[in-house]
Amino acid sequence: MKSVDYIIKADYLLTMEVDLSVIRDGAVAVTGSDITDAGTFQDISGKYTSEKIIDGRNRVVFPGLINTHSHAAMVYFRGIADDLPLQVWLEQHIWPNEMKWLSSEFVADAVDLACLEMLKAGVTTYSDMYFFQNTSGKQLQKIGMRGVLGSGIIDFPWKDVAETPDDYFTNCEELINAWKGNELVTPCVAPHATFTCSPDKYIRAKELADKYDVPLHTHLAETQYEVAECRKRYGKTPVEHLDSIGFLSERVSAAHCVWLTDREIEILAEKKVGVAHCIESNLKLASGIAPLPKMLNAGVKVAFGTDGAASNNDLSILGEMSTAAKVHKGVSMDATVVDSRTALLMATRNGAEIVGLGNKTGSIRPGKKADIVIANLDKPHLSPLYDIYSHITYCMRPGDIETVMVNGKIVVDKGRATTLDEAEVIEKAKAWQNKIQAT
Amino acid sequence: MKSVDYIIKADYLLTMEVDLSVIRDGAVAVTGSDITDAGTFQDISGKYTSEKIIDGRNRVVFPGLINTHSHAAMVYFRGIADDLPLQVWLEQHIWPNEMKWLSSEFVADAVDLACLEMLKAGVTTYSDMYFFQNTSGKQLQKIGMRGVLGSGIIDFPWKDVAETPDDYFTNCEELINAWKGNELVTPCVAPHATFTCSPDKYIRAKELADKYDVPLHTHLAETQYEVAECRKRYGKTPVEHLDSIGFLSERVSAAHCVWLTDREIEILAEKKVGVAHCIESNLKLASGIAPLPKMLNAGVKVAFGTDGAASNNDLSILGEMSTAAKVHKGVSMDATVVDSRTALLMATRNGAEIVGLGNKTGSIRPGKKADIVIANLDKPHLSPLYDIYSHITYCMRPGDIETVMVNGKIVVDKGRATTLDEAEVIEKAKAWQNKIQAT
Repeated sequence: MKSVDYIIKADYLLTMEVDLSVIRDGAVAVTGSDITDAGTFQDISGKYTSEKIIDGRNRVVFPGLINTHSHAAMVYFRGIADDLPLQVWLEQHIWPNEMKWLSSEFVADAVDLACLEMLKAGVTTYSDMYFFQNTSGKQLQKIGMRGVLGSGIIDFPWKDVAETPDDYFTNCEELINAWKGNELVTPCVAPHATFTCSPDKYIRAKELADKYDVPLHTHLAETQYEVAECRKRYGKTPVEHLDSIGFLSERVSAAHCVWLTDREIEILAEKKVGVAHCIESNLKLASGIAPLPKMLNAGVKVAFGTDGAASNNDLSILGEMSTAAKVHKGVSMDATVVDSRTALLMATRNGAEIVGLGNKTGSIRPGKKADIVIANLDKPHLSPLYDIYSHITYCMRPGDIETVMVNGKIVVDKGRATTLDEAEVIEKAKAWQNKIQAT
Repeated sequence: MKSVDYIIKADYLLTMEVDLSVIRDGAVAVTGSDITDAGTFQDISGKYTSEKIIDGRNRVVFPGLINTHSHAAMVYFRGIADDLPLQVWLEQHIWPNEMKWLSSEFVADAVDLACLEMLKAGVTTYSDMYFFQNTSGKQLQKIGMRGVLGSGIIDFPWKDVAETPDDYFTNCEELINAWKGNELVTPCVAPHATFTCSPDKYIRAKELADKYDVPLHTHLAETQYEVAECRKRYGKTPVEHLDSIGFLSERVSAAHCVWLTDREIEILAEKKVGVAHCIESNLKLASGIAPLPKMLNAGVKVAFGTDGAASNNDLSILGEMSTAAKVHKGVSMDATVVDSRTALLMATRNGAEIVGLGNKTGSIRPGKKADIVIANLDKPHLSPLYDIYSHITYCMRPGDIETVMVNGKIVVDKGRATTLDEAEVIEKAKAWQNKIQAT
């Protein structure tokens, strides 16, 4: 009998490995930061002992959810401007506020709030695109959450972040040097979008990512405006354009991909580009509805992203799963698309793979990091229970998430964060709100 | 100074009356089952005293939410069949299970679960269409929830509910005689749909409702199948058909209204028919997407319905608000439609009006019944807070609902039901689940 740090029991265990079968009366053994083993409780308890056995009666255990596209610090602009056309929202509200408020101090406090919200909703990893990512990295270390932190690149200077566009690359390289090899934080190179980054920026970003073997993250084909602009500038649609300059590869996760031709869907599949599907943001900003069923059929690897809370307005991947599973049925008039198993697979294993962490997280497999969620099923809205996948996709809410483990450490216990002072984080958000409102 | 039973304080008070303005530091005075007064706390505390003052720091108070279309007892079939085409879902799963299991005992237990879920999600009134409504009425009396209970009418006999179609009318009349004038329960006549009810049934239903002055509830224009079938049988589309036989009036609430011509939208507006918009059910069953912005523009009174939990899969009106506000922006490519104020108005005052309870509930106005919700804003996902309407529509979750009052009585206190034993209700659901799964 081998001694392990934790044995996590569960009435229902979903490993999200290979066949997606449901293990009844399951258990996961965890040692240090790693998953040691997973199977039935009978099997696991015959092989391991632990002083810490987490009881899983009326509980389901599944891999931590992956948020593959966010701008975490924008959580401080949640609800500051809604129900407005995208350009008005962006140009009259979001950009001026970012220009006025963004700083390392702002990002530090805002990232705490975003991570608190995500962890309590079962999200253990997020892939981000923003500035001041070195600050985000420090917060993640403190909080104990996993993140892929993409440092933004655009064509024009921006505040003290970049006096010249060259500075964005310097920032990226510094971020990489500071965090490469870190257990929780993965640095990432993030050219913003085809209408804000010239081809040379994209090429240079790719070269930098190749040099250090880190992921690339970009916005792609989010709006009709972007497609029109890309055609005007380069005579090509966005995916074709990035393909023609050699940017696309398995290293890239592309957020949105709303406006795609069939040929572009083929390119995304061929080049193994990961797609961060941000259904709620795309709906709320009236950007359009991405062809998710077509992408899945074509073999494109797609996962879920919340985008920033200013356009969502929350950071819940459970919400994205439920919305996507329903919306694509309604839009395609086919009730069989995006079934509940597909939704959870996208939210876990697919998510980890598209942000370059497929070997580390996204499923419960010996050798992977212990990023694990325990949800309480003993709730009216989860009763009765015929199909656990259905309940997670269509009925489960962040409030049902009880225990969250990241990298072998419990960061949410009985629904409360263990590494963040919730009251303090909320108070800080109010203090920033008061400052922002006063102007 | 007049003594009242409760003074409910609130950082934010939304009465949902007339101008939809936000009252900061507000208060509501409640006496017996009624709202006595509402205004600023300064104003209310100058006029009334109470031994029970509910502290509303970091809280928002708004009218109880109205679920205008449900089949509450179907909650026991939640998740029993998903991701299937509507006809397979209905004919191979739902109908056989209903045929096998439906009974007064089943309905009694299932309604407890549905009401528990709804009350905890801030829903204080639901409008239902099902059988065994006398049983539902008894449960509502026990639970202390408001309901409009529509007794179903179809063309064919069904189990022991109706040996002949005449029996449906007898059932309706008995329900009316048993409950007419009751404070919580409003009996209602509910012909099922144009493809299951011949014109004579609709006409007889209307005559019965007129005779006793009770509401009418029906399904209308839910699917393309229904429209095609109606054209085939009557040479008219569903709304035109019901209009031609004189069925439509302010007394009618019509669920779904997905497939409408522009002329039919005009008819619904002219005849003041209320529409129960069931966006999540329509999406999940791939029925289509109702033209909500067009209906609102045309002056049709529209509110939200969850439909049964077998096709949703929950009974949360907050969920419907969020989904509808986002989906219609995405589908219409216009981010200004179904703004957050409109969403909460639909979920409250409009809802009450379309189910015939406009004088009783749906807003916080002196003389109306005290159906009131208090939600806790002290949450990460509700921070910061720039616009309270935005947060209720886009971010609030059932778990944020803390206190719920129906008819002047507190039925949810600190998130726990006071009139139902939650553990017992969940245990009963499991017992039924085990019976149903065993066959």
